[in-house]
Amino acid sequence: MPGEFALIERIRARVRARPDVALGIGDDAALLDVPAGHQLVVTSDTLVAGVHFPPETAPADIGWKALAVNLSDLAAMAAAPAWCTLALTLPEADDVWLDGFLDGFFELADEHGVSLVGGDTTHGPLSITITAHGFVPEGQALRRDGAKAGDEVWVTGTLGDAAGALQQWRARGPFSAKLRYRLDRPTPRIEAGLALRGLATAGIDLSDGLAADLGHVLTASGLGARIDLGRLPTSRTLADHFDETARWPLQLSGGDDYELCFTAPASAAFAIEQALSERGVTATVIGQLEPQPGLRCTTPDGADYAPPRAGYQHFQGVH
Amino acid sequence: MPGEFALIERIRARVRARPDVALGIGDDAALLDVPAGHQLVVTSDTLVAGVHFPPETAPADIGWKALAVNLSDLAAMAAAPAWCTLALTLPEADDVWLDGFLDGFFELADEHGVSLVGGDTTHGPLSITITAHGFVPEGQALRRDGAKAGDEVWVTGTLGDAAGALQQWRARGPFSAKLRYRLDRPTPRIEAGLALRGLATAGIDLSDGLAADLGHVLTASGLGARIDLGRLPTSRTLADHFDETARWPLQLSGGDDYELCFTAPASAAFAIEQALSERGVTATVIGQLEPQPGLRCTTPDGADYAPPRAGYQHFQGVH
Repeated sequence: MPGEFALIERIRARVRARPDVALGIGDDAALLDVPAGHQLVVTSDTLVAGVHFPPETAPADIGWKALAVNLSDLAAMAAAPAWCTLALTLPEADDVWLDGFLDGFFELADEHGVSLVGGDTTHGPLSITITAHGFVPEGQALRRDGAKAGDEVWVTGTLGDAAGALQQWRARGPFSAKLRYRLDRPTPRIEAGLALRGLATAGIDLSDGLAADLGHVLTASGLGARIDLGRLPTSRTLADHFDETARWPLQLSGGDDYELCFTAPASAAFAIEQALSERGVTATVIGQLEPQPGLRCTTPDGADYAPPRAGYQHFQGVH
Repeated sequence: MPGEFALIERIRARVRARPDVALGIGDDAALLDVPAGHQLVVTSDTLVAGVHFPPETAPADIGWKALAVNLSDLAAMAAAPAWCTLALTLPEADDVWLDGFLDGFFELADEHGVSLVGGDTTHGPLSITITAHGFVPEGQALRRDGAKAGDEVWVTGTLGDAAGALQQWRARGPFSAKLRYRLDRPTPRIEAGLALRGLATAGIDLSDGLAADLGHVLTASGLGARIDLGRLPTSRTLADHFDETARWPLQLSGGDDYELCFTAPASAAFAIEQALSERGVTATVIGQLEPQPGLRCTTPDGADYAPPRAGYQHFQGVH
């Protein structure tokens, strides 16, 4: 695109080096060193304006979130993040927008020591694809297919905040800045993922909502689960804005939490709490795996509750 | 997007396995084994409808080209391709379009043994970002910064065919199907790249046109070059449709050739010709590197010729 080389220079100037990047931005491809005894972990996610975020989202929040959703996938594999590529499609070469985007992007990248090693800038409707790379010691990745019947089901942090923000945004009424922050600035649970190596049996990140994402673990592991709705971790802010029955659909099917959901035998519970609290991450047991396939939810009154269908809709139809 | 899981299954069903893919599509991220003693080579390129290809381009040609432009970058590094991720943004879930796209994509992927290991499908204006991964033995990558004064400048194949097709397409007049094929189905010079390990001093792929891309090598290596326009390799079809002075701008500044341009000492010329001809690739010496910075072109009459400015415009403005 016109001004592409100036754009690339603007991006490259902010990249932090890593010793395992033999050659970064500026050649046909990057040259990278994967440490011996480790597997490479690769994930790729796209954000499209008006589909994955409201059009008025601040550029810095878009930059943060585009990287965060990818790092969240690495966290779910218990991988240590290392590098990423950035494919940025922009309607016009706008330095102010780009600098804002890079502020958010590099704030998160630098926090996790992720080096930007390449990518592409093109002209077109606003869209961002990031491919993130990390490592995990051979055989220690947290997969979806390792859960065992009887394992407890855990989630990190709190659920439903982002979906609450989205519902408020759609209603065009009063909204909570705290909830909106959780939508725009999700926290990839990298530290939690690393702490769960050797402790959790399976894991996934919550992008599409607990029901859909836990459903993937259940399918991959050939199991079912019962979830106790009264144990779903809930932020005070969400509770202030939504009563219990309004919260459950947000927490089960809202998506965009980017918390980790993982499974582990009850015998590992103490070690898990200790390992996570050392890293400042809270986690909660919300249910248990059962041999019978399917997801069953129980209200605090002991009644069955069918989670509303959703998952992977995000902002679909917002534009 | 609605139907995303069906789309992913449709894609996954066509993936060919590789023994170094420990875990492919279907978890939060892929788990991959990089061979010992090798560096990982990573590149990422985006194609946007109406910007990088005319809107009426056949889906199979789009699928081929989206992968080809990435494999071309790996070829320019002398890397052996291994894996890729595919981020596909589609205006609607259209099985017929998708199947056509996958036909072209997997035709090329299977030809080079590239395994699709992950990605994302999203709703939005048509756009494709592929991140390609390959390996190169430690220290044997072909970089842009290794050229030496006195080295000869080579290009593979023929130049200007794709740019000729684009010019015909823009003129809306008669066109050559052979030239159009070169625009829609570029050949990534993977075999040539592998053959040049240990022989070439620097290399790049020709995506933006010879003048711009050779210019990157000159800048990175701190050198200049003189190119003999009479030696630019020209297909008979291009010569049939464009006379000499009409060809030069296409060959120097047209772009989309996806041939390799590389440099090597004259003493390596025989070994290079032998190594390339064993792989069925033609290559031509078109000039020589000089200490004085800048690119100078000489016509067959011995006159100086200034290449028209272009590079990295592609289909910009087509839409």
